[in-house]
Amino acid sequence: MSLSAIRILGVDPGLRRTGWGIIEADGSRLSFVASGVIVPDDALSLAERLAAIHAGLCAVLAGHAPHEAAVEETFVNNNPSATLKLGQARGVAMLVPALAGLTVAEYAPNLVKKTVVGAGHAEKRQIQAMIGVLLPKATFKSADAADALAVAICHAQHRGARARIAAATRMTA
Amino acid sequence: MSLSAIRILGVDPGLRRTGWGIIEADGSRLSFVASGVIVPDDALSLAERLAAIHAGLCAVLAGHAPHEAAVEETFVNNNPSATLKLGQARGVAMLVPALAGLTVAEYAPNLVKKTVVGAGHAEKRQIQAMIGVLLPKATFKSADAADALAVAICHAQHRGARARIAAATRMTA
Repeated sequence: MSLSAIRILGVDPGLRRTGWGIIEADGSRLSFVASGVIVPDDALSLAERLAAIHAGLCAVLAGHAPHEAAVEETFVNNNPSATLKLGQARGVAMLVPALAGLTVAEYAPNLVKKTVVGAGHAEKRQIQAMIGVLLPKATFKSADAADALAVAICHAQHRGARARIAAATRMTA
Repeated sequence: MSLSAIRILGVDPGLRRTGWGIIEADGSRLSFVASGVIVPDDALSLAERLAAIHAGLCAVLAGHAPHEAAVEETFVNNNPSATLKLGQARGVAMLVPALAGLTVAEYAPNLVKKTVVGAGHAEKRQIQAMIGVLLPKATFKSADAADALAVAICHAQHRGARARIAAATRMTA
């Protein structure tokens, strides 16, 4: 890893399956580091499943030491109960890197798709094909891990712009 | 505090305001211990606000050492964006006591109202009046803290039944 490389954690949160992916970005050059999925035992209570997501993400942080994190904005559908469950998993997915001192960026699913594939309404197989192009060494056993890698790629493309906007906001504040 | 007393943490989660309340239950006798509200700075990022709720609840656990926790089931309304925000706060509110080894019970708002006031559609001022009756020494500066005390009272009334159901389920499993 070169001194200028940034290691990025992407997370696609969910109560049943939380995908994660780690990439390195060195300028415009991206490389795959690792990916996986956290699957809490669904016989556990809600609080215990959230604790399992917490433990899984803590292990990812400890094992791969990312510098920045990015989380997909959970899809807000018309099922309030499902939205609430996703929100709970997402709260834990954002908390863990924040407690480790990482900035946690959020990206809408459409921006992730547009950044990775070039179209905001890309299908999952298109995303996975483009991850294979952008990260030739990437391996992922599930769509959740692929989505997490896509969020990390999205952050790699947009983090420079985010930093410039934040700096400009501080200067004018 | 007698040896048979159980100290209960109630939480009413929210991204803007998370109410908390601690009571002691010794058989059917309840007493007030403490209550408060965690208000993250709304200039912070979402991840930082979740970290502030985490820090506030960790301080409550460290200061009052409850044995069990209960969280109100966030109201699932027809605003997906608001439901998602509440879900995120609720995920953190359930995670913190779970990581401390506490069981975390969930109660629907209607059951909380019915238990405390006797009617599932009680108004906030009725709940606050009944908390004054059930916990004469209670002080609370906000409706969120009062709601958290109401959840703790609800758990004090129902925890025996929950434990019996869990034991019976284990015996027949």
